[in-house]
Amino acid sequence: MSVDVIDRVRAFARTELVDRQAYLDSFADAPLPLYRRFHEAGLANWWLPAEEGGTGLGLEDSVDVVSELSYGDAGAAFTLFISVLGTSMVSLYGSAGLHARYLKPMIDGGTFCATVGSEQAAGSELAKITTTAVRSGDDLVINGDKYFSTNADFADFLVVIARSTDNPSGVAAVVVPRDTPGVRIVKRWEMNGLRSSATYQVSFENCRVPADHALRGPGLRVLEVGLNASRILIATTAVGVARRIRDHCMDYANTKTLRDAPLTGNAVFAAKLGQMEMQIEVMRTQCRSAAREFDAILSRPDAADEFLRRGTLKSALAAKMFCGQTGWQIASVGSELFGGLGYTHDDAIGKLVRDMRYVAIVEGGDDVLRDLVFSRYVVPVSKRT
Amino acid sequence: MSVDVIDRVRAFARTELVDRQAYLDSFADAPLPLYRRFHEAGLANWWLPAEEGGTGLGLEDSVDVVSELSYGDAGAAFTLFISVLGTSMVSLYGSAGLHARYLKPMIDGGTFCATVGSEQAAGSELAKITTTAVRSGDDLVINGDKYFSTNADFADFLVVIARSTDNPSGVAAVVVPRDTPGVRIVKRWEMNGLRSSATYQVSFENCRVPADHALRGPGLRVLEVGLNASRILIATTAVGVARRIRDHCMDYANTKTLRDAPLTGNAVFAAKLGQMEMQIEVMRTQCRSAAREFDAILSRPDAADEFLRRGTLKSALAAKMFCGQTGWQIASVGSELFGGLGYTHDDAIGKLVRDMRYVAIVEGGDDVLRDLVFSRYVVPVSKRT
Amino acid sequence: MSVDVIDRVRAFARTELVDRQAYLDSFADAPLPLYRRFHEAGLANWWLPAEEGGTGLGLEDSVDVVSELSYGDAGAAFTLFISVLGTSMVSLYGSAGLHARYLKPMIDGGTFCATVGSEQAAGSELAKITTTAVRSGDDLVINGDKYFSTNADFADFLVVIARSTDNPSGVAAVVVPRDTPGVRIVKRWEMNGLRSSATYQVSFENCRVPADHALRGPGLRVLEVGLNASRILIATTAVGVARRIRDHCMDYANTKTLRDAPLTGNAVFAAKLGQMEMQIEVMRTQCRSAAREFDAILSRPDAADEFLRRGTLKSALAAKMFCGQTGWQIASVGSELFGGLGYTHDDAIGKLVRDMRYVAIVEGGDDVLRDLVFSRYVVPVSKRT
Amino acid sequence: MSVDVIDRVRAFARTELVDRQAYLDSFADAPLPLYRRFHEAGLANWWLPAEEGGTGLGLEDSVDVVSELSYGDAGAAFTLFISVLGTSMVSLYGSAGLHARYLKPMIDGGTFCATVGSEQAAGSELAKITTTAVRSGDDLVINGDKYFSTNADFADFLVVIARSTDNPSGVAAVVVPRDTPGVRIVKRWEMNGLRSSATYQVSFENCRVPADHALRGPGLRVLEVGLNASRILIATTAVGVARRIRDHCMDYANTKTLRDAPLTGNAVFAAKLGQMEMQIEVMRTQCRSAAREFDAILSRPDAADEFLRRGTLKSALAAKMFCGQTGWQIASVGSELFGGLGYTHDDAIGKLVRDMRYVAIVEGGDDVLRDLVFSRYVVPVSKRT
Repeated sequence: MSVDVIDRVRAFARTELVDRQAYLDSFADAPLPLYRRFHEAGLANWWLPAEEGGTGLGLEDSVDVVSELSYGDAGAAFTLFISVLGTSMVSLYGSAGLHARYLKPMIDGGTFCATVGSEQAAGSELAKITTTAVRSGDDLVINGDKYFSTNADFADFLVVIARSTDNPSGVAAVVVPRDTPGVRIVKRWEMNGLRSSATYQVSFENCRVPADHALRGPGLRVLEVGLNASRILIATTAVGVARRIRDHCMDYANTKTLRDAPLTGNAVFAAKLGQMEMQIEVMRTQCRSAAREFDAILSRPDAADEFLRRGTLKSALAAKMFCGQTGWQIASVGSELFGGLGYTHDDAIGKLVRDMRYVAIVEGGDDVLRDLVFSRYVVPVSKRT
Repeated sequence: MSVDVIDRVRAFARTELVDRQAYLDSFADAPLPLYRRFHEAGLANWWLPAEEGGTGLGLEDSVDVVSELSYGDAGAAFTLFISVLGTSMVSLYGSAGLHARYLKPMIDGGTFCATVGSEQAAGSELAKITTTAVRSGDDLVINGDKYFSTNADFADFLVVIARSTDNPSGVAAVVVPRDTPGVRIVKRWEMNGLRSSATYQVSFENCRVPADHALRGPGLRVLEVGLNASRILIATTAVGVARRIRDHCMDYANTKTLRDAPLTGNAVFAAKLGQMEMQIEVMRTQCRSAAREFDAILSRPDAADEFLRRGTLKSALAAKMFCGQTGWQIASVGSELFGGLGYTHDDAIGKLVRDMRYVAIVEGGDDVLRDLVFSRYVVPVSKRT
Repeated sequence: MSVDVIDRVRAFARTELVDRQAYLDSFADAPLPLYRRFHEAGLANWWLPAEEGGTGLGLEDSVDVVSELSYGDAGAAFTLFISVLGTSMVSLYGSAGLHARYLKPMIDGGTFCATVGSEQAAGSELAKITTTAVRSGDDLVINGDKYFSTNADFADFLVVIARSTDNPSGVAAVVVPRDTPGVRIVKRWEMNGLRSSATYQVSFENCRVPADHALRGPGLRVLEVGLNASRILIATTAVGVARRIRDHCMDYANTKTLRDAPLTGNAVFAAKLGQMEMQIEVMRTQCRSAAREFDAILSRPDAADEFLRRGTLKSALAAKMFCGQTGWQIASVGSELFGGLGYTHDDAIGKLVRDMRYVAIVEGGDDVLRDLVFSRYVVPVSKRT
Repeated sequence: MSVDVIDRVRAFARTELVDRQAYLDSFADAPLPLYRRFHEAGLANWWLPAEEGGTGLGLEDSVDVVSELSYGDAGAAFTLFISVLGTSMVSLYGSAGLHARYLKPMIDGGTFCATVGSEQAAGSELAKITTTAVRSGDDLVINGDKYFSTNADFADFLVVIARSTDNPSGVAAVVVPRDTPGVRIVKRWEMNGLRSSATYQVSFENCRVPADHALRGPGLRVLEVGLNASRILIATTAVGVARRIRDHCMDYANTKTLRDAPLTGNAVFAAKLGQMEMQIEVMRTQCRSAAREFDAILSRPDAADEFLRRGTLKSALAAKMFCGQTGWQIASVGSELFGGLGYTHDDAIGKLVRDMRYVAIVEGGDDVLRDLVFSRYVVPVSKRT
């Protein structure tokens, strides 16, 4: 089944994405109509569990799905997979009622959810968030301003990270329907890359949701669990963009001569492409390996608790950091390969470089993640590889 | 005098460039009105020799001029200095008549010249150009298509590199007034960065100029001489942009806290900025040193011949390669420093990264220059450092 | 079973290797007595198939075995696993008679075999070898000089790569008992690192072996198959040495203060160690993944033929290249961490750096492997990742 | 004169150093007899001022002297120039009496001096030293243990950095004759590289010197001034070793073929050497530029005070950091170029890599220097380049 899904995704990418770089880079109104066609092709939210009606594809296979999508366009890939962050949290820590009410429609309707965590003064340090979810009778009342939330405007619901005295950890993750009164889109950010995606600043003013919309578990830890899935797929976009850059280089070299011989026969060019292919192979291996670990935990009967025990996985952090760094190296090499033409809008490499940049930035920059790896996985001797 | 000029340039940059990043990045019609104001401030073409009425500032001081300009905007800097490529060639290898007719007005009018070298199939290998300059009576008749030429549309004249049986080397550099019938702007390239500058594709159809408009000396060697000056100043733009990135990082860190302490007190941030400052220092040193060598040759009575003997200078190649590589490292580090905000148009770092990219690309990518350094300065044992 | 073997290997490493760096680095007579004790512990040649009497541990588990051994000492690890190159070839392409005569005793006796490929003028280009294996009646007669062969002096047998008109490909891999008249050890090389191992220059003068000692299949392709196993384990030594460097850094930091706080609390130190751990994780993942692919092919009924069809595996090349490069980065960072003391023989880091260096050099430097990846896995579109 | 001195130094290096790598790497008894021959050639302590009888060569010319010496052997270079650290301090901050008594004999006798700063618990943080210089009548009495001091055993005198209530800054730099009772060589360190040099651990037990042997000025600041000179020359050794590596690569490539063509004709090899030459050029430029700044200050009438005001120079820090980093890159590339042979003692590259390593380590590792650049030259806006 996974091969079938991947083939269909590849076909979708070739039809809708590969040759439409200028359009995808144009910052057109969100969401792009093509996301509807992705749903019509039966592919939307492909990772949702079979018992909810999804394809039930695991995260390991999702790596190849996302690689194909981001080969076509990283912004489209990001738009189409980033709901996994919210659905993972709801799926693991939400009640059966929340599953039925929120996950099921995403399969049927190919719709989106969004996660709202970061704030202006709480980017890399989520512990500093000031948004609150205060108990009022049977409800939680949410107030606060959130900075970056992808898909938020057209999502079915938002998972909001907020201070809450109801939660023993002091922070809760709360499901808030998009149409709740008081949810307001402040602005859409104009991003340097991923311009076919849409990220918003969102504010909450006295937004009321039933108290059972709070997910079980410490909010920041629940978020960490969800980030395992999304970080692996963010890392994977680097694989797709890197594969695209490689093929773009080869297409160019097949038509270009140097000293009256094809550029593909030049030893320096060959060395660059050989190095790139090696790096792509290692990036993909790390993404798939981290995803396999995620899938293995998810298949346990005590998955939800085990994930809370484990929190952020070293394999997922490594995938995100490694692909961010390595993807940027590949983009840097690629961006010098096309001469003057590569510095113009006539060539796609400029967009690919801008798209690649996000991998190392969203959901934790490398400085933050290096520190996290150190404190969680180096200081405790038993956690070292 | 040099300090005075540099102060005035810095003032100009602060007024016209530093706070106008969005405008300068907007791909507005060329040339921007501010270039006229640069002339009105008495600064245009500052490097032209005093005997022609210029300020007579040497290339070493020009390094600091260009650093200030590109601190404000690399595209403006490039627009304002790139005429040096053409004027160097005309100044060294043109007759007194050409000096009077073409250089003098550039001082008086603050106008531009352009150089047209590269062709679609002759980017890194100029020896493959197909544009011709054919003798016809007392004239040269020029035909061909040229790919990248900055400022060409609004330049007074173009220095065209063309095949010519008149020149013993087979290639000539010929001065062609912009208003010569048959000179046609095919298109303006939309560039990824340097968007305040304007680079054109130009075609020549039976363009007639007097034969004395051909510069003395082998055309490709004459071009190499001119490139010494322009490559040093291109390298220098990396210094300016890097200084801007550094200050941008410091401004940000002064307002940002990490773990309840100012970001400037964070050891990782300090290490990055310390490394950046070291690299900026070394870049500037290499640019100034290469420029000093250029100035020293220029001050010789036999400057024109000595330059033909020396051709492309190792110091200029080293400046170009080193600043292209190091500038990109700095831009890469900088582009990760501002978190999610740095990935939006609300922050200037995205533009700075795109601007920086050109240093390693224009007037010879690193693959070409490495090869040139190897064949000219490593294979001959006596030329090694 | 694998966990048990790995635990025993770890115990062996702690006892025999970890605290004996000076001795292991002393270039003592080969083989060191401790290799005998490795056999007495029932661990020698652990990868040999269970049907021959070995532990039958697959290559994937061997990755963790080698990581533990090279944590103790890379030279010991190399000595103890490099026979895998020869045994893989004999196991896959040797007759049942050769298995019985040569593989069985290696299990019983914990002995070694060696592979002799490279020659003075045929290092990175094995196609240029001049050693010959000429048919003479029922025998093959071998003549030639071979450059680098580890363990050759004390091996039971050597697998010699030689020109042979008997083999349709022109090159054969031939099993030659060590005690064959005419086999001569020319010298032991003094290596910069891995000094507990022993690598020899070997010459062959009219060495006679039965013709059935030639392995089935094209010699260079058969060698490629064997190199899949050995390159993955060479790559793995980088994992072990890197883990050792990491722990060495942490031990140091736990006793060292900077600005009156433990060095482990310093953000720059934490960032370096976090990065290191991430890199170690990715290296191990790639080694295990490549080994898993090797094991999967080996478990097929047509393993021998499939391996000939596949030749050198991309995953194995990627492991070797990636770990060579990344290991060197880790060694470089580590070698700056211990201040002046780290530049003396009082500290182990100098040896670790020298040991690490070999990963990128033996069995194909990166220039060779990049080219191989390019021609085998980038040029053919269907082979790209 | 400088050209003459440099020529003689080059001749000395060719005769005594270039072809004696094994001997120079052997950790023979210090000092090597060849240092005496350097004096007999009239070259010892070449930088000492002409008014004291020296050649009076400035630091800028010394860069080329040291480049030639370290092309031959970095350990010999270090041995022969490191006295500059002590003589700079005595020359600038010692009385006329100290000049006569200590500097003059170094010219006449070609002898050495040493500086003793670091302690076991005060390596990168000299402010933590515990060695004391206590006033006792007309004397200072020195007690303490010092870690790394090059040439100390056979030096005429040591400049000791010690706590002293006599000095308003709390730390003094004190001249201590080597034969002062109580000065004891604890051990000679066995170093990983620079093995023709000799570095010692030294202890002081009730060592008595006249109080006028304390240099004028705050001890740590006086040391910073001296380090300007020595760090620039340490940086320069990277230039010499890098030049040696480059020539070693070219010599190899001239005798080696790849695909039946000389290795020098291979594009990947050419690219590596072109890059290396560029880097060597930039390193030399930075060293000479920093030295020129040093010379300019030294030529001022108020040199001693100006140096105290300026402290550690950004140009010198940049030279040290840049050459340490770039030299290591060159050594890393070089160490992969010679295949298996390059990993044996038959080839010099292993020694060159070990020698190169010291540049980034001695007199301040990069972490320390990055921090210093940040606090001194980035935080104060006016000090930025």
